[in-house]
Amino acid sequence: LNFSVQILGSNSALAAHGRFPTAQVVQHNNSFFLIDCGEGTQMRMSHFHVKRSKIQHIFISHLHGDHYFGLIGLLTSYHLMGRTAPLTIYGPPLLEEIIQLQLNASNSQLGYTLQFVPTTTDGKQLIYDSPELQVFTFPLKHRIDTTGFLFQEKVGKRKINKSSTALLGLQANDFLSLRDGKNVAVNGHTFENESLTFAPPVARSYAYCSDTCFLPELKEYIQGVDLLYHEATFMQEEALKASQTFHSTTLQAGEIAKLAEVKQLVIGHFSSKYADLEAPLKEAKSVFPNTILAIEGSVFQIERAAIQHLNYSH
Amino acid sequence: LNFSVQILGSNSALAAHGRFPTAQVVQHNNSFFLIDCGEGTQMRMSHFHVKRSKIQHIFISHLHGDHYFGLIGLLTSYHLMGRTAPLTIYGPPLLEEIIQLQLNASNSQLGYTLQFVPTTTDGKQLIYDSPELQVFTFPLKHRIDTTGFLFQEKVGKRKINKSSTALLGLQANDFLSLRDGKNVAVNGHTFENESLTFAPPVARSYAYCSDTCFLPELKEYIQGVDLLYHEATFMQEEALKASQTFHSTTLQAGEIAKLAEVKQLVIGHFSSKYADLEAPLKEAKSVFPNTILAIEGSVFQIERAAIQHLNYSH
Repeated sequence: LNFSVQILGSNSALAAHGRFPTAQVVQHNNSFFLIDCGEGTQMRMSHFHVKRSKIQHIFISHLHGDHYFGLIGLLTSYHLMGRTAPLTIYGPPLLEEIIQLQLNASNSQLGYTLQFVPTTTDGKQLIYDSPELQVFTFPLKHRIDTTGFLFQEKVGKRKINKSSTALLGLQANDFLSLRDGKNVAVNGHTFENESLTFAPPVARSYAYCSDTCFLPELKEYIQGVDLLYHEATFMQEEALKASQTFHSTTLQAGEIAKLAEVKQLVIGHFSSKYADLEAPLKEAKSVFPNTILAIEGSVFQIERAAIQHLNYSH
Repeated sequence: LNFSVQILGSNSALAAHGRFPTAQVVQHNNSFFLIDCGEGTQMRMSHFHVKRSKIQHIFISHLHGDHYFGLIGLLTSYHLMGRTAPLTIYGPPLLEEIIQLQLNASNSQLGYTLQFVPTTTDGKQLIYDSPELQVFTFPLKHRIDTTGFLFQEKVGKRKINKSSTALLGLQANDFLSLRDGKNVAVNGHTFENESLTFAPPVARSYAYCSDTCFLPELKEYIQGVDLLYHEATFMQEEALKASQTFHSTTLQAGEIAKLAEVKQLVIGHFSSKYADLEAPLKEAKSVFPNTILAIEGSVFQIERAAIQHLNYSH
């Protein structure tokens, strides 16, 4: 089961050095989610052969242009391309007014249903819930209301150990009980659940934090995630500028990753002052070695934790 | 004195085949004007090394997204790049509300003055007037209110023929009269203006027509322009679709050029169905031979008419 993140844009504010403003696609099994949608995102989708028609949920972190100016173009293109599948957009309340005003101005009725779900910065909020996956918002700290997004796989049911159960003559409801983690009784004898089942696959998680100043409180929302995307707009020498603009530095991104004990860190939202990204990467790694760059086009697979992590979820 | 048009985007509706939605830069001497601003225009400016900071006037033909979705990003980038020079935007009245709503959402005050001049579809209207150049809007016929733009050089003053005037002992006010086309009297003898002056340089003109259905009435607004940009979204085989969507075909664009006796025609706003543009070009040329394609990056110089056209302006 695939769980991955593809970077479509990694630059802050302006496009520069061939880098586009923020956008990324999260795939979880057969579900596709877009996070942020800077100007030119639809061109990046074409460039990287993203199957844009599969996206049914779009999450917008905040209303600075480099995170959403490409949205109205994408929505319009969907219409022109004949989309009929409904689309849900999660973002700050004003986003709906902005989009509707522009749709009204063009005097066109979309050929698909567009639904808006307003986000708030009031703690952790569940905004998407499917049998396999939940998405939560949580507050970041920026110049305007901004939320991060946490993609959390649901813990699946336990798996039947067929070699242990083969000769017990169990009934259908016994199997249901076992999958739910309950013990079962056969002819008066109680079998411990763990003797007849395997643990379910470990639930994976991805957290997205952009844009934000250094915010240690993030730890409570993103503790132990498998992959953390955290903005690192500036290197440490620009710490003052980062603070003034409510952005983070490479060292601060690494520090958050360490505090939250995440498994891997991806840094992005690079200032245009960095044509080359090796120095920012090196600086982040000095705090959190398992750091990688959000190079556009890259696909990061979120793997299930290795065997030694199997107990982690119990 | 330079008068040129650079194409930044030539595709209709969606970006495709490496072509971007509509945008072009008109240069007249030291003045720079942007016409339309589809998504990604600022990236095209970077790509083609357009000196975007020199643009002080932006003309938006109508509020379909492929003609203006890149505007808010450009305006925001100007701010981020430290622009202080004022900027004037000419377009449909609702454009101001759309832009202001998005600026308000980002809670930022632009570092430069932004002025909006609403356009109307009420006949020919002068919207820009400098000592050298005038810009007029005129109504096109599309699914929503749309205007074309006519860039018209002013006829300059006549030039003194120094070899004819050298021995006449003319006074300063005599020279002013001659430049204004008046005759002068010296010692009771009247000299015809044309015996002492040369005709001023021929005034050049450029007309922009996108988007519009076939509209023979355009003739009155664009008669005899040196260069006409006219949309040619479809080839003639799609005439029905062109009619239904209020667009023009290649043959219709050529027909307008012929009716209006323009000197050269540039066709653009190509449907994504045409990966190759040779067939549309050939079709337009069958009606109006002096037709060229709006290839992105191309700069079309609007030359002064040749000698045999010198009498044209008198």
